[in-house]
Amino acid sequence: MKKSHLLLLLLLPLLAKAQNISIDRVNPTNWWVGMKNPNVQLLVHGPGAGTLTYTVNYPGVKLVKTNTVENPNYAFLDLSISPSAKPGSVRLVGKKGTQTVTQTWALKARDNAPKAQGVTAADFIYLAMPDRFANGDPANDKFADMRDPNHDRANPFFRHGGDLQGAAQHLGYLKDLGVTAVWFTPVLENNQPLTSEGGTMRASYHGYGFTDQYSVDRRLGGNAAYKSFVQQAHAAGLKVVQDAVYNHVGNTHWILQDLPMKSWLHQWPSYTNTTYRYTPITDPHAAQIDRKITLNGWFVPFLPDLNQQNPFVANYLIENAIWCVENFGVDAWRIDTYLYNDQPFMNRCNAALLAEYPRLHIFGESAVTNSIDQAYYTRSKIDFPFKSNQPGALDFVLEGALLGALKDTGTPATTGWDGGAQRVYQALAQDVVYQDPTRLVTFLDNHDHNRFLSEIGDDLDKYKLGLTWLLTTRGIPSMYYGTEILMKNFKDPTDAEVRKDFPGGWPGDKDNKFTAAGRSARENEAFDFVKKLATYRRDHKVLHTGKLMQYLPENGLYVYFRYDASGTVLVASNTTDKPAALPTARFAERMSGFTKGRNVLTGESLSNLATLQLPAKTAVVLELGK
Amino acid sequence: MKKSHLLLLLLLPLLAKAQNISIDRVNPTNWWVGMKNPNVQLLVHGPGAGTLTYTVNYPGVKLVKTNTVENPNYAFLDLSISPSAKPGSVRLVGKKGTQTVTQTWALKARDNAPKAQGVTAADFIYLAMPDRFANGDPANDKFADMRDPNHDRANPFFRHGGDLQGAAQHLGYLKDLGVTAVWFTPVLENNQPLTSEGGTMRASYHGYGFTDQYSVDRRLGGNAAYKSFVQQAHAAGLKVVQDAVYNHVGNTHWILQDLPMKSWLHQWPSYTNTTYRYTPITDPHAAQIDRKITLNGWFVPFLPDLNQQNPFVANYLIENAIWCVENFGVDAWRIDTYLYNDQPFMNRCNAALLAEYPRLHIFGESAVTNSIDQAYYTRSKIDFPFKSNQPGALDFVLEGALLGALKDTGTPATTGWDGGAQRVYQALAQDVVYQDPTRLVTFLDNHDHNRFLSEIGDDLDKYKLGLTWLLTTRGIPSMYYGTEILMKNFKDPTDAEVRKDFPGGWPGDKDNKFTAAGRSARENEAFDFVKKLATYRRDHKVLHTGKLMQYLPENGLYVYFRYDASGTVLVASNTTDKPAALPTARFAERMSGFTKGRNVLTGESLSNLATLQLPAKTAVVLELGK
Repeated sequence: MKKSHLLLLLLLPLLAKAQNISIDRVNPTNWWVGMKNPNVQLLVHGPGAGTLTYTVNYPGVKLVKTNTVENPNYAFLDLSISPSAKPGSVRLVGKKGTQTVTQTWALKARDNAPKAQGVTAADFIYLAMPDRFANGDPANDKFADMRDPNHDRANPFFRHGGDLQGAAQHLGYLKDLGVTAVWFTPVLENNQPLTSEGGTMRASYHGYGFTDQYSVDRRLGGNAAYKSFVQQAHAAGLKVVQDAVYNHVGNTHWILQDLPMKSWLHQWPSYTNTTYRYTPITDPHAAQIDRKITLNGWFVPFLPDLNQQNPFVANYLIENAIWCVENFGVDAWRIDTYLYNDQPFMNRCNAALLAEYPRLHIFGESAVTNSIDQAYYTRSKIDFPFKSNQPGALDFVLEGALLGALKDTGTPATTGWDGGAQRVYQALAQDVVYQDPTRLVTFLDNHDHNRFLSEIGDDLDKYKLGLTWLLTTRGIPSMYYGTEILMKNFKDPTDAEVRKDFPGGWPGDKDNKFTAAGRSARENEAFDFVKKLATYRRDHKVLHTGKLMQYLPENGLYVYFRYDASGTVLVASNTTDKPAALPTARFAERMSGFTKGRNVLTGESLSNLATLQLPAKTAVVLELGK
Repeated sequence: MKKSHLLLLLLLPLLAKAQNISIDRVNPTNWWVGMKNPNVQLLVHGPGAGTLTYTVNYPGVKLVKTNTVENPNYAFLDLSISPSAKPGSVRLVGKKGTQTVTQTWALKARDNAPKAQGVTAADFIYLAMPDRFANGDPANDKFADMRDPNHDRANPFFRHGGDLQGAAQHLGYLKDLGVTAVWFTPVLENNQPLTSEGGTMRASYHGYGFTDQYSVDRRLGGNAAYKSFVQQAHAAGLKVVQDAVYNHVGNTHWILQDLPMKSWLHQWPSYTNTTYRYTPITDPHAAQIDRKITLNGWFVPFLPDLNQQNPFVANYLIENAIWCVENFGVDAWRIDTYLYNDQPFMNRCNAALLAEYPRLHIFGESAVTNSIDQAYYTRSKIDFPFKSNQPGALDFVLEGALLGALKDTGTPATTGWDGGAQRVYQALAQDVVYQDPTRLVTFLDNHDHNRFLSEIGDDLDKYKLGLTWLLTTRGIPSMYYGTEILMKNFKDPTDAEVRKDFPGGWPGDKDNKFTAAGRSARENEAFDFVKKLATYRRDHKVLHTGKLMQYLPENGLYVYFRYDASGTVLVASNTTDKPAALPTARFAERMSGFTKGRNVLTGESLSNLATLQLPAKTAVVLELGK
């Protein structure tokens, strides 16, 4: 072989590559005319996509800048979309030498469907894991071309086949229960393999490892099913909360196959896990390294940590958030692992969402155990060096107090100095640190915790007490699916124990607990209890926006009021294991002028309010009258 | 008897009373020219004193207003004292009809003696109870004309005879120990009887039940002895902290024998004790009645609660505070039961003191268990509806954390998620809520708590660990008397158990622990330890004003640094029960550039800082060098 021939052979792959420039992805996959923010940054990917010179020739759309990065397969195009631009198909034209690559990209009209309606204290949120709730379309249970092609309801780590169509079939059930909003664990694509890591199975049925933020997982029904679910929910008068994840993605996310630049992720010399410690973030005495490990350490090895200080990453995430709200029409925005995100990024992201959707409620998951750290991640009254603009948050502090109080209920601890209802009382007293504690989302458990009923020893009295507190105190209550039918379990040995299939959600299920006939007497007692209280709450503004006044618990008795011009509701809790007679003279500030009461749960009328009879381990809810 | 004679007889007492108008008290007992605030309100008491028409004829002193109240035996005279007024004897002239009552009142020149020097993190405060510390003058041990005429060192409730002269005799001891400031439990007159209440003895040797705020208790040596003590302390380079009580007085206080008006005290239809609950004060959802009982309920039945919203009470207390600082020359101001006071009053009082004495440090006792409530009573970064102007506070939150950490030390809990040193670390992390946490006064115990050594199981390792933390972390450290000689005890059966006489403080004491020869080897080990660390602290600015950086504890090892331009001190604590080798690479942010260290406690030199050897249950204090 001649030398020149050899050279040609060596050069061939390069030449071939140069000749094969193409575009295989543009994100966001589309945009809309008439958004408040005229700017959008397109991520354009394909072999050599970053080596092209781009032009856009579309009325009202201006290509302001083409950004190139380390990896020549990416270009980031800064577009400006004039208010006068018309919906249509925008042609992105990229040229290099004699080669021209053309990609169309849709600019759509915004629809008039309800969206971003927000959730408020008038709502009652139902949290469900779509793979485990109801299977409406067995045809999408598994796909041979996905990294985890399995489906087996007997295996806790495998996909079980629940989907959005299945959930939609039970909107009537939820509405009947008194639910006003549905929050699914994340629905975006999790095309992750099922792996084993140190003997621990790593599954993605829960949805927290995105592989493509512009596709709803096919096994849940894809984008169309999600959009349809939202439309059906809205038609039924229910809202939808989307669960967002910014902190990390699945390690098989398509971008990770071909990173735009090293700094797309938080990189470490050797694998570094977060400590899961939030203290260094707020500690004025903290070392930088402790902060860095908390924030930039990876949540788990298979969920690479995104570097949101990289402006391309930040734009990518923010635009996806807006795209999801606009495209699917969701009403509220729950954010996973909120505290692990770069907080200035979170503020930018929240501000961008709220600029487009002022009523959208945003509430993040920051699993902390004290009010100061919880306040750091929401609009607070503490002058932290960093001030969060998050409108809400999940109220982990109150969850801990509620469970603590219920565990003490019926024991001597309930009358101790700091035990029993004192825990709830003291937690709520620290509301002084929040700008608006009524925007916190309250809960008794979730998909990462032991189920509520198991936490409280399978005690139906405590169950009712806890749900009464949840549904009558301040905040936006949320409930984990199955609580209403007494689903229980501890997380051990795996989280899947608290993520069991809802009985009746699958064709052919032996039991159907979506119907009264399918539930046991005890389950119906629970269901009816939740329904009665949730319905009362739904229909009574005083439990939404009424003020809260709570009295110092005494002898295990905890009394509070919700009140406004429309009415006054008294909640008197007896956390001891004996019936109690409670004189009400002490509560004159709220009871003065009222002469009678109606027991919201039993319907019983009270014509004398001087002394209340409180059964053991029971909260009496009274609507006061004159 | 004629009718007219009978009438005369009936009127005689009234006429006699009218004829006997006199003045027996004027408070403040004197004032000074040249105070920043030109106004002072004199409380004038005596039979019929409130029925007189007053005039003051003294250059530069103007009687602005005479206030009368319910009880005709009081007048409150508002004086304005011009900067040009000269010291001298002011004549208060009161007239009624033909009767003239004259009372002289001293207007003094201010002296140039040091006063109100403040205490800062450069100080180390020694808290002693004067009745139990040292008896310098056995002649004042008891007085037959006082309500409690007893003296018996064998009886925990009786006076033991300690006094200010005794304390003064031991200033050299305190200075040698490294102490820079002395704080006595209150020295003002407690002429209370010894009573028994429901089987509980109510004694006043502790000083918290004032009966006259213008007299130091005679059994402590009176005003002269206190003034002399302050002068001797100042001469020795020590500062003096006065313990103030505004919330209540002893029930035999002279004013209570003849109340100016009903509203002088917090009155209740039937006796109402405070709940000792601070939550209703900060709780935005609290009922007014809960707040009222906390604040206006009495601390104990024999300590009537002053109504500081009564402007005469407020003026009386504020002027007494200023009078004490000016008259005795004290340097700092500790305030008893701070949280039970009317907080707007406290702000007025603090502001008045700071206007006259800008360097005076003020730190109150608010026995709370969380940082939010602690922040409420000092200058904070929380936007509470009420904003305290108190410069400091006693750090009860850190006390709880330090004791909790030490109790865990050497147990498996020390490496738990929230156990051991994590408690200290997490408490300090919440410093974010204070404007200046270095102005908090830190402690390990006090006269109301179990003694430190008993709390930690009489463990000398834990003792050293706790004192090392106290003397090297942020704040103004204080230590309760006798800690340095290993005095111990629990509060049960009575508080007197933790208020034992300092051995050697009384003539003829078998042991004299003020001297090395009188102390056991173990006591000398403790004494020398405190002395070494306190002296090092005293002489090294970095432990006063140096910044604190703390690292997340790992495996029971807790490391922090104090640092400034003058140096860096590393404190590495091993709270486990096994020796540990600690690699220091993680601490590069603070250790970079340093190559060697000197162990402050052992004097040992370290030429390699790569790994630190930490004995079990020990804190190593290293001064780093280049």
